[in-house]
Amino acid sequence: MSDEATPPDGPRSRAVRRRDTERRLADDVDLWVGTASRGGVPHLVPLSFDWDGEHVLLATPADSPTGRNLAGSGDVRLALGGTRDVTTVEGSVEVVPLDALPDAVGDRFAARTGFDPRAEGPGYAWFRVRPVRVQAWREANELAGRELMREGRWLVDAATAGEGR
Amino acid sequence: MSDEATPPDGPRSRAVRRRDTERRLADDVDLWVGTASRGGVPHLVPLSFDWDGEHVLLATPADSPTGRNLAGSGDVRLALGGTRDVTTVEGSVEVVPLDALPDAVGDRFAARTGFDPRAEGPGYAWFRVRPVRVQAWREANELAGRELMREGRWLVDAATAGEGR
Repeated sequence: MSDEATPPDGPRSRAVRRRDTERRLADDVDLWVGTASRGGVPHLVPLSFDWDGEHVLLATPADSPTGRNLAGSGDVRLALGGTRDVTTVEGSVEVVPLDALPDAVGDRFAARTGFDPRAEGPGYAWFRVRPVRVQAWREANELAGRELMREGRWLVDAATAGEGR
Repeated sequence: MSDEATPPDGPRSRAVRRRDTERRLADDVDLWVGTASRGGVPHLVPLSFDWDGEHVLLATPADSPTGRNLAGSGDVRLALGGTRDVTTVEGSVEVVPLDALPDAVGDRFAARTGFDPRAEGPGYAWFRVRPVRVQAWREANELAGRELMREGRWLVDAATAGEGR
C-alpha cells in the first residue's frame, strides 16, 4: 500500500481512509462520545478508549449522563480526529461490569490511557462498543465515498490502496 | 487580565477559562454538534459556525439527521477544541428560515466559514443556538470548577482573571 494513491490535494481513496481510521483506532487515546437520553436529550464528552481490532472499550461512571445513556439506549456515536479530519463510528453498546473483563484487557486499557477505572471504585463500568457504521472524511471533496462500514461490515478492503471511491 | 494568573502546569482560573471559551467562540470555525432524535438515537457531526456574542449560528440541511434532531428536540450539545482542551455548550435551538436572517448576518457567516448556505438552495436552514450551560476543562485537574455558565448566565466575571475556582 502506498501513499502515492492519494494526491496531496485530492480526496483519499476509501482504502486509505480505512487504513487511516484503523490507525486512529489503534493509536489515538481519546475520542468524542455522543449519546442520547431516552427522552432525546443529547450529551457529548471526550473519553479515553482502547481498541482490540473489533471493539472500542470505554469506561465511565455508570451513573454519569454518558453512562446512563449508553446503558439505556445501547446506541453511541463516536468521533475521532479533528473537525477537518473526521472519523465517525455508530456503534452498539454492551455494558460490562468492572470485574467481568479479563485482567489483561483492563491492564491494556490502563496502559494505553493512563487511567485505570478498576482503581476508581465500584461506580465505574466498562462499555464495549461494536462498530456498526463507520464514515471518514476531511473536507467537502471527501463527502462522497465517506461510508467505510455498514451493518458492521467493512465495505472496502484495507489491503487495496488504489480502490476507487 | 494577565496570563500570570494561571501557573503553566496548574488549572486555569475560571475567569481565564471563560476568556479562552469566548476566544474559541469568536475565532474557531468548526465545532462538534451532538444531537438526539426523539427516539433517543445520538448523532454527532462537525459543522461550521458563527458567534455574535449571544448565539451560535449553524446551517445544515433541514432534512439531515442533525437538522431534524435540532428542529425536533430543540436541544443541542456543542463541543469546541480538542479532547484535552474542551469547551462544551448545552443550548436551546431556534430554527430560522434561510431568508429570515438579515443579509449582513448571513454575509458574516459566509465570510467566517467560507460556506454560504443561502447559495445551496432551499433545503438548508439556520439554527440559532442560545447557550444555557457552558463547561471548560483541559485535564483532570480542571474538572473542578468546569461549569462557567448555568441557566444561560455566566457564573464568572470575565474581567476578573484571579477569580477563584
